[in-house]
Amino acid sequence: MRGASAGPEIERLIQLLARLPGLGPRSARRAALHLVKKRESLLDPLAEALCVARDRIVTCTTCGNIDTCDPCTLCSDPRRDAATLVVVEDISDLWALERSGAIAGRYHVLGGVLSALDGVRPEDLSIDALVARASAPEVSEVILAVNATIEGQTTAHVIAQRLSGADVKVTRLAHGVPVGGELDYLDEGTLAAALRARSAV
Amino acid sequence: MRGASAGPEIERLIQLLARLPGLGPRSARRAALHLVKKRESLLDPLAEALCVARDRIVTCTTCGNIDTCDPCTLCSDPRRDAATLVVVEDISDLWALERSGAIAGRYHVLGGVLSALDGVRPEDLSIDALVARASAPEVSEVILAVNATIEGQTTAHVIAQRLSGADVKVTRLAHGVPVGGELDYLDEGTLAAALRARSAV
Repeated sequence: MRGASAGPEIERLIQLLARLPGLGPRSARRAALHLVKKRESLLDPLAEALCVARDRIVTCTTCGNIDTCDPCTLCSDPRRDAATLVVVEDISDLWALERSGAIAGRYHVLGGVLSALDGVRPEDLSIDALVARASAPEVSEVILAVNATIEGQTTAHVIAQRLSGADVKVTRLAHGVPVGGELDYLDEGTLAAALRARSAV
Repeated sequence: MRGASAGPEIERLIQLLARLPGLGPRSARRAALHLVKKRESLLDPLAEALCVARDRIVTCTTCGNIDTCDPCTLCSDPRRDAATLVVVEDISDLWALERSGAIAGRYHVLGGVLSALDGVRPEDLSIDALVARASAPEVSEVILAVNATIEGQTTAHVIAQRLSGADVKVTRLAHGVPVGGELDYLDEGTLAAALRARSAV
């Protein structure tokens, strides 16, 4: 990219913004310009929010979530059900489940999925920590809420094997038609799974 | 949006990121997570770059560009041709022309275009300042490099009238087929303009 003619400071800001997922070089330029124009309402608060994130956000050593405290708000909340451990690949999956409001258990973030292609082995994920947590007397169920991809399902399989000795029920999310989804747009695998798991009305 | 379960600090960061052009609520969440994961390589430098931008970026009182000095690097560069004033709507247009490397004149940023719909009147743009700059003895040409939109062309027309008394040549960008463009994908107006302005080979 040729210089943006606004000095190295703006250039550097543009280059850093371009590394955010969802922003390319062109949209990063637009974003930088937008920031400089909205100095009071956006640039100042964003700089402040990033400094707060830099100085105060830590990874929870129990579940792998991020928060300003360790253990995180979810792990230290006594109202959440300690009997249920929900295993997710990534923090974004944890957030998605929390937005659904459908479960109030404790979480365990694996930090990825097994992948021969990317060289991710079981010891690269927090599986040992999960097995240790699952063997605690208060835990009765481990829900494997991993993505319905090949890697996700392989990871779920390996975890289920590791947990076979522990005294916990291991479950996984149901496959089926997404709520609001149209059959016409669904793949055959999903339709077959939804048919197999059909229930009486 | 329901809480992201990572405390108000992350929520605030997500909300601010979502206000950048090109990022929505979902991609802002991804960007926030990406930032927290790439703490040393991205979060720290971006926080620093934003603080630098906040503290040091100013608007050039001569041309309207942004830079860390006023007058800006372009206005104070003695190698640039002071005889040519390139009038643009916005700073992003100035950057686009600079990337082309096709002109080494001075710039004048209008700060928008006339628009009855949005209530933008001539006095809302830096037209008076442009007329004053154009009447300087060293200026011999004013290039109206505004967008080829109705509003842009209306603005160019108004500026040309205001400059009719000054001793400067007023020009505008050529219309025609974009370099690399295919005729099949071009609108009729562009094709008609390219035909009218055809040249001998």
